[in-house]
Amino acid sequence: MTVNVGIIGVGMIGQDHARRLAGGLSGTRVTAIADSDAARAREVVQSLPGASVHSSGLDLIAASGVDAVVVTSGGPTHEEFVLAAIRAGKPVFCEKPLAPTPEACLRIIEAEAASGRRLVQVGFMRRYDRGYQALKQALDEGSIGAPLLVHCTHRNPAVPPTFTRDMSITDVAVHEIDIIRWLLAEEVKAVSVMLPPRSCNAAAHLHDPQLLLLETTAGVPIDVEVFVNCRYGYDIRCEVVGETGTVSLANPAAVSFRSGGTVTDRLPADWRERFAPAYDTELQEWVNSVRVGEASGPSSWDGYAAAAIGEAALTALESGERTEVVMKERPFFSG
Amino acid sequence: MTVNVGIIGVGMIGQDHARRLAGGLSGTRVTAIADSDAARAREVVQSLPGASVHSSGLDLIAASGVDAVVVTSGGPTHEEFVLAAIRAGKPVFCEKPLAPTPEACLRIIEAEAASGRRLVQVGFMRRYDRGYQALKQALDEGSIGAPLLVHCTHRNPAVPPTFTRDMSITDVAVHEIDIIRWLLAEEVKAVSVMLPPRSCNAAAHLHDPQLLLLETTAGVPIDVEVFVNCRYGYDIRCEVVGETGTVSLANPAAVSFRSGGTVTDRLPADWRERFAPAYDTELQEWVNSVRVGEASGPSSWDGYAAAAIGEAALTALESGERTEVVMKERPFFSG
Amino acid sequence: MTVNVGIIGVGMIGQDHARRLAGGLSGTRVTAIADSDAARAREVVQSLPGASVHSSGLDLIAASGVDAVVVTSGGPTHEEFVLAAIRAGKPVFCEKPLAPTPEACLRIIEAEAASGRRLVQVGFMRRYDRGYQALKQALDEGSIGAPLLVHCTHRNPAVPPTFTRDMSITDVAVHEIDIIRWLLAEEVKAVSVMLPPRSCNAAAHLHDPQLLLLETTAGVPIDVEVFVNCRYGYDIRCEVVGETGTVSLANPAAVSFRSGGTVTDRLPADWRERFAPAYDTELQEWVNSVRVGEASGPSSWDGYAAAAIGEAALTALESGERTEVVMKERPFFSG
Amino acid sequence: MTVNVGIIGVGMIGQDHARRLAGGLSGTRVTAIADSDAARAREVVQSLPGASVHSSGLDLIAASGVDAVVVTSGGPTHEEFVLAAIRAGKPVFCEKPLAPTPEACLRIIEAEAASGRRLVQVGFMRRYDRGYQALKQALDEGSIGAPLLVHCTHRNPAVPPTFTRDMSITDVAVHEIDIIRWLLAEEVKAVSVMLPPRSCNAAAHLHDPQLLLLETTAGVPIDVEVFVNCRYGYDIRCEVVGETGTVSLANPAAVSFRSGGTVTDRLPADWRERFAPAYDTELQEWVNSVRVGEASGPSSWDGYAAAAIGEAALTALESGERTEVVMKERPFFSG
Repeated sequence: MTVNVGIIGVGMIGQDHARRLAGGLSGTRVTAIADSDAARAREVVQSLPGASVHSSGLDLIAASGVDAVVVTSGGPTHEEFVLAAIRAGKPVFCEKPLAPTPEACLRIIEAEAASGRRLVQVGFMRRYDRGYQALKQALDEGSIGAPLLVHCTHRNPAVPPTFTRDMSITDVAVHEIDIIRWLLAEEVKAVSVMLPPRSCNAAAHLHDPQLLLLETTAGVPIDVEVFVNCRYGYDIRCEVVGETGTVSLANPAAVSFRSGGTVTDRLPADWRERFAPAYDTELQEWVNSVRVGEASGPSSWDGYAAAAIGEAALTALESGERTEVVMKERPFFSG
Repeated sequence: MTVNVGIIGVGMIGQDHARRLAGGLSGTRVTAIADSDAARAREVVQSLPGASVHSSGLDLIAASGVDAVVVTSGGPTHEEFVLAAIRAGKPVFCEKPLAPTPEACLRIIEAEAASGRRLVQVGFMRRYDRGYQALKQALDEGSIGAPLLVHCTHRNPAVPPTFTRDMSITDVAVHEIDIIRWLLAEEVKAVSVMLPPRSCNAAAHLHDPQLLLLETTAGVPIDVEVFVNCRYGYDIRCEVVGETGTVSLANPAAVSFRSGGTVTDRLPADWRERFAPAYDTELQEWVNSVRVGEASGPSSWDGYAAAAIGEAALTALESGERTEVVMKERPFFSG
Repeated sequence: MTVNVGIIGVGMIGQDHARRLAGGLSGTRVTAIADSDAARAREVVQSLPGASVHSSGLDLIAASGVDAVVVTSGGPTHEEFVLAAIRAGKPVFCEKPLAPTPEACLRIIEAEAASGRRLVQVGFMRRYDRGYQALKQALDEGSIGAPLLVHCTHRNPAVPPTFTRDMSITDVAVHEIDIIRWLLAEEVKAVSVMLPPRSCNAAAHLHDPQLLLLETTAGVPIDVEVFVNCRYGYDIRCEVVGETGTVSLANPAAVSFRSGGTVTDRLPADWRERFAPAYDTELQEWVNSVRVGEASGPSSWDGYAAAAIGEAALTALESGERTEVVMKERPFFSG
Repeated sequence: MTVNVGIIGVGMIGQDHARRLAGGLSGTRVTAIADSDAARAREVVQSLPGASVHSSGLDLIAASGVDAVVVTSGGPTHEEFVLAAIRAGKPVFCEKPLAPTPEACLRIIEAEAASGRRLVQVGFMRRYDRGYQALKQALDEGSIGAPLLVHCTHRNPAVPPTFTRDMSITDVAVHEIDIIRWLLAEEVKAVSVMLPPRSCNAAAHLHDPQLLLLETTAGVPIDVEVFVNCRYGYDIRCEVVGETGTVSLANPAAVSFRSGGTVTDRLPADWRERFAPAYDTELQEWVNSVRVGEASGPSSWDGYAAAAIGEAALTALESGERTEVVMKERPFFSG
């Protein structure tokens, strides 16, 4: 069985996913796209032989030639499309955020529960990165004993002028928020934010860098440096400290240079280079899960948790105070 | 168009390729297999829905449901199957060695030339490894200036009792022989072999480790340490030294440990772990080349060159003397 | 001129310093020792030809054959001996802590100021480590732009049963407290402490590990992981994050192993191995400063600042609250 | 006892040693210098309080205020001064080469033997480097099993116009020649040289880079890349391959940078930076050995062996042939 996928929103990430689904991945093809920018949709469809353009996301979801839906439109539109896909009984892969507010995420969880089966996967691609997977495996095998602390850095060379103050948390730290929950298999219960001096390279409306301090229900502290104007490269690091050792992400350079007085390993230029294989694996596994009819991967609950923790982090940033995360009890049905 | 592949020989590597072609790769499926061990063929076919078992490789090549052929049978049988595929006008992917002797390889080159188009790709998968590709890119971009020397190590933890003396060259160093030709875009003109003391962990009939010294037509020396009983891990290294710097393969560990008094990066256990992504890319690119009807990748000429250099290396090993490689002029038609 | 040194307290660190001053260093010798344990003093003096044993520290300080004094006795005795050395007009090298309380440190600062010249050096040896010196140089040269955050870890494999709860701060984190002040040339203004789950390898009366969060007057946050039962090795790390890059201590392994499936760099076993060259340099520079009659190195003010910050950290540990550091204005005369 | 040292030859390395002996080292002082350039001697002596200038090296050796002699004059003068020191019964530290020819070295060995005790130490400082010492320790402890091969590189960024063709061997590879003998505790029995294309950055009269291939009496092959115009930095590497693992020199960077798209470790600028601590240790141990009256360190036999192997290497370079090393039997008396 080949999975016929419809994609709603064909901006940068949507085009990336279209290319993957139409080209490199197995057992799938792109049959439909939709975009609020009709001209863009008509252009993108040129490189997708056999795909049609739909006038709206809802139309695409309803189309008979669409078995499963990828939502890569703007964040505020996610809820509508995901709910529609659930109503149509079609599996849906939604880029993060699942929805902009915890409340919206809860509505999705409820609709999915009412539908009787898991249909939603959220695009937290780091869970498919071989580095994080090796961290997870090391933890699960007990290679370092019980985890006690985690140190993270998330550095981007630069951000565009459209980048808002909150995005350091909602678009950037959200990846650490999800991966920590996954690595430790625990919820985050509180967040504090420390504000270093602003980098001279950061726009005046940003707090950049910042230091988030998360605490899990078991009391594990996680420090997350978020620095989106670090200039020097895209640098994602994570060290989990356990009772008998630590395990850290390695720099994924394929080669090492000796030149100009130094031994040099290149860093990835950006997240697309750094996580390209993770995106491949993520979508392939989603396609596979659609084929076997059994959702796996980050669930709507994970989308909700990230939104709730992000909300607490924004409050902490605003207030300067340690802020407790407000979350519902996890329902029995939540993937 | 989906490429229907038939696989001749479903031992370990054949099964690996079958799994890739049937599962992870895009635009292809396995429709036929054959194996001299009929029972094994019947067992392997269980996990290949839609594939049939053929009574012989030649039969498989002739089958109408087979668009392209993978030859993963024993080395001595390669020539027969590759020639048959050429005669049938079907693209053929042949695991190394293309054939056991330079003469046999030449017969294949001639048949292919007579057919009027490139049909053969040889399974030198390292060319698809991201490490070697980054080396190649660095060389091509002039990052280190003109290459002057190359240092290689090829270490395996252990080999089975069936491993013969010559295999250190024909099955092991052959990978360096090919990759050096590809990296430097030059032929190898001479080979010497130095014999260190035999490791206490090596069987008495082996020369292990050994140090091969290759020279290219431009005079670049390449030292290749081959050590197939190094015990500690699978360790492939390559440093190209240029006029202004050097570039080396990095150890591909995804994470780094701190434990037991050390900072530790794990090495791959074996070639399957180390080169799994390269095999994926290699076969996907072969499938893609079949779809567009234009062969790429290592050619029958590359198979011949590896055989000729390997032959010189065996003579050098035997005689203790520097041995010149005997090679035909490269024909105009040779990929 | 040879500097005749008297050493008060010849426990482990005192014997280390005696060995250095009597043996490896230039321009100095040990002429006198004293210890509250007279038997130990008599034993240690055997390996110090030409040195005499004094019945008390005060006696030693007064002796005519003593040009300068090293105080390596127990912390609570430091104040008395340092004050006596100041009164005698003799340069004094005092191991950290200068004195157990900020008030006692202030009394020393006042006595030294009244004497009209700097006589006191405190034993913060990390300032003489080539790693920290390279960090300092990189900062001073502007290699990474203005510093914005610092990440530190201080891990010991284990501590003896006599190790008390407060020592994680007063004996361990005190090194980071001093080095941060020195690297950034700023005071620390506040401290918070986060308490992870206690390691199963830590005694029940300890908070181990713990995460200290310092803030400098310019607002630079410094996270310091203190983990004195980490089991795996002695691991000191420090990364300073600046506006255009970061600089970190490298692991000081002299060689790298490939064995047992891994690439392995050994970590130092303990602080003596890790900082032996720093201790050598520290004491040699102290001797040199005595010879030229001009104190350099960590001053009594640095000893006071460390005590004041340590006091705030202990309050923060106790209360769970962010605690401001209470410090006097720095007097004009303070090294 | 303080060792009064006289230094013959106060060019760059002689001044370095003078500074060490007069300043940083323990138990010694410089009391006399001599140089064929009298003006230079008068200038250098300014910074050596208490030292006198002698009109000749022989005069200095004879002086009553000189207990031991350092020979850092030009290579061709070494034999005369070393022999004179032996005749005077004074310990002598001679920079490499001990003498330019094996024959001259043998005359020194004979004179020393006739004197009845070891008086000569040759300046092979690498034996005092903590990296090579850790290699040696690993070998002696059996950490990697019996050694089977060694890979070395010796790269300099550039050489002055006065650098001659032979110096790649006599002044550069000589360090690897000595250290290999020391690490493996074996003699070198044969040498071959492979000549890569000449770097465009090397003067036309040089063979640069070159690849030396040494063989020990036990048959261990050692490849030594010598590249004195590598441009990018001073890069000394050594990997010993044993039956169960390997051990390599680590890059001795104290810190690591992240900047400009890379993770970067600085390489030493030159041999003075790389081996400064080794020179310190070497001379301190020599001073200590003089104080106890018992020579240690590289002996005149080591100087002879290096000269004999170097001679074979020059022949191999000239002839293009594998060349056997011609060496006397090691006399019973040879340190």
